[in-house]
Amino acid sequence: MSTTTGQVIRCKAAVAWEAGKPLVIEEVEVAPPQKMEVRIKILFTSLCHTDVYFWEAKGQNPVFPRILGHEAGGVVESVGEGVTDLQPGDHVLPVFTGECKECAHCKSEESNMCDLLRINTDRGVMLHDQKSRFSINGKPIFHFVGTSTFSEYTVVHVGCLAKINPLAPLDKVCVLSCGISTGLGATLNVAKPKKGSSVAVFGLGAVGLAAAEGARISGASRIIGVDLNANRFELAKKFGVTEFVNPKDYKKPVQEVIAEMTNGGVDRSVECTGHIDAMISAFECVHDGWGVAVLVGVPHKDAVFKTNPMNLLNERTLKGTFFGNYKPRSDIPSVVEKYMNKELEVEKFITHEVPFSEINKAFDLMLKGEGLQGAATVRILCVCFSSLLFAVLNLDCYPLKILSLRCIIRMDA
Amino acid sequence: MSTTTGQVIRCKAAVAWEAGKPLVIEEVEVAPPQKMEVRIKILFTSLCHTDVYFWEAKGQNPVFPRILGHEAGGVVESVGEGVTDLQPGDHVLPVFTGECKECAHCKSEESNMCDLLRINTDRGVMLHDQKSRFSINGKPIFHFVGTSTFSEYTVVHVGCLAKINPLAPLDKVCVLSCGISTGLGATLNVAKPKKGSSVAVFGLGAVGLAAAEGARISGASRIIGVDLNANRFELAKKFGVTEFVNPKDYKKPVQEVIAEMTNGGVDRSVECTGHIDAMISAFECVHDGWGVAVLVGVPHKDAVFKTNPMNLLNERTLKGTFFGNYKPRSDIPSVVEKYMNKELEVEKFITHEVPFSEINKAFDLMLKGEGLQGAATVRILCVCFSSLLFAVLNLDCYPLKILSLRCIIRMDA
Repeated sequence: MSTTTGQVIRCKAAVAWEAGKPLVIEEVEVAPPQKMEVRIKILFTSLCHTDVYFWEAKGQNPVFPRILGHEAGGVVESVGEGVTDLQPGDHVLPVFTGECKECAHCKSEESNMCDLLRINTDRGVMLHDQKSRFSINGKPIFHFVGTSTFSEYTVVHVGCLAKINPLAPLDKVCVLSCGISTGLGATLNVAKPKKGSSVAVFGLGAVGLAAAEGARISGASRIIGVDLNANRFELAKKFGVTEFVNPKDYKKPVQEVIAEMTNGGVDRSVECTGHIDAMISAFECVHDGWGVAVLVGVPHKDAVFKTNPMNLLNERTLKGTFFGNYKPRSDIPSVVEKYMNKELEVEKFITHEVPFSEINKAFDLMLKGEGLQGAATVRILCVCFSSLLFAVLNLDCYPLKILSLRCIIRMDA
Repeated sequence: MSTTTGQVIRCKAAVAWEAGKPLVIEEVEVAPPQKMEVRIKILFTSLCHTDVYFWEAKGQNPVFPRILGHEAGGVVESVGEGVTDLQPGDHVLPVFTGECKECAHCKSEESNMCDLLRINTDRGVMLHDQKSRFSINGKPIFHFVGTSTFSEYTVVHVGCLAKINPLAPLDKVCVLSCGISTGLGATLNVAKPKKGSSVAVFGLGAVGLAAAEGARISGASRIIGVDLNANRFELAKKFGVTEFVNPKDYKKPVQEVIAEMTNGGVDRSVECTGHIDAMISAFECVHDGWGVAVLVGVPHKDAVFKTNPMNLLNERTLKGTFFGNYKPRSDIPSVVEKYMNKELEVEKFITHEVPFSEINKAFDLMLKGEGLQGAATVRILCVCFSSLLFAVLNLDCYPLKILSLRCIIRMDA
């Protein structure tokens, strides 16, 4: 048992005091985990655009002061009452949505939208007692999506923790706790392309490239990347993209361009921009008879999906997915194994690293630029929060230049 | 070998000379089958609203004179060059769409939308030579959807014939060549409800009741029939419908009513009206996480399917189907076996029978009334032609009273 078990831990955390203001590294108090909770030491976290979105707080309820962060890897420090699945020392990935294993969704083979622990971006407290575990001089600091990984220690509901192979390098697999799994799972779990098939991926940000990686792993023979930014294609090749379509290069709708390239349409498509026109194109570009389109990107709250119903009656399938249909506890450990088996390549998603003390640099990098290729704008779209974000996130992804993909923040530096 | 092999056969056929005018029983000449064609003796045919729709010719290219009819059962009289699958004496069901077994659709496990033989309602001739096999005094009479079953003999492409169990009574299983299989397959092949699950069926015409029959066969525990006509519920109980929702009884959208009845939504829905509002309701009434909505009904050509994309992102699936996803040659024989095994109940779909000489009575019955329950209007919706009919068919189904379901026409009487 750790000497800190049952004690308040004082540690460093990056606190967002106000919308849009630089985070401040503060000494915070982290209370012990309560019933069904786990306190973990975060070793690595990464920055996802969803953190930036809620930090900017332009489109939703502002909840401040708050500790952001949700893509991370850590080690269990202590566990609260009723936790039997985890013990101190276990390696875990915290996930922004959960799996209670008791509700109808968790019992369904098809759903990962847990009734109890489904993402809630407005809640800044723990479920058990509606209180925060973070405080500074007795004043509570709010949680973010149940993870708050921009802290050396955090408290997470056991249902939001994936216990992973302790041999997996946390500085790599931490990125699997959100966007990469979202894109990967959209392809592997939902689109399910067959070997030798054709797949179109709309939006070549981190999530779209992870969807392409899923198509590559599935053995798709044609992976058509669709993006408004031609600069993305070179990078996309690393993720298996074989052809590139820039809608700006054509006068006709991109679905028609793709249908002509593929003798009637692709076998599968995965939409990772959230732009409503791209969503409709992604649906209409799949082949009649067997085509399946999977929607990942989160649209503007007022967006309306419109299509001629004959496009459906001609035996196309339209599906949406949330977090790649992965159940956090049951399935994410196997995603880590895919990396360990060298089936899934994670390193290529990681483009930057900064020490925790310079976490604001990660925000600057994302907001202002310094991409892989010189001066390109850095933006990362995290569309994994799809059930709740009625956001303008999409606008940040589809039209922008590339980009860094993931910046790892080392907590011990 | 039949004595008529290779000869022109003179027989009776009901000819539609003009749009909307009573059919006239004429003596026609039926030429021998050409390459990949089969001549069959029709023993029983039934009337489907699609026949009436093309007879009225209010919404499409008029093709006259024409021999209508597409739901039928018969026996092979002779076969043309290249036909190896069938021989004289085989019992067959002609189907309005086909299966060439060579194209990408036929080779796909998922599609039944054959490139070569997919329904074509404008074509009045045979594919091989673009000529009709029917004539009167040398003047051609046009075919209808490759079947033209309102004739004692007809010529059909081998790809549009299902060879069935010769023990199956053709006066019953003839109805499996169109609408009943369409509804049944929508549930069994596409919606695939699990045992104990809940299924909503929109529109309780013949196709909808066949969809309900599929849900009953699947072991669904709740089958919710949705129709604007309360009179349909009594009949629907025979097809497994356990609950009835009449949207007219509520001020809120029917999808909300169903969600409240089912703790968040049904597991599966099947839409058999083609009314665009019902299509949207059928999609939005399925449960998030795992719900699957299947569209069968053919909408008006200008209809637009609209929904908030979050309904998709919350892990609902939307699919369309054509002829219940059955491949005519490969799969329809097994539907007949389901009847032979007493798994599928066909008799309850058959409400009337008339001799061939009185075929116009079947049209009258459908158009003017004489339902099961006295004076109710007789209308049958055939939505199996979903890929081509951009029709007002739906208006005939959703709001009307019940109904006869199928009227069998005996060719030998």
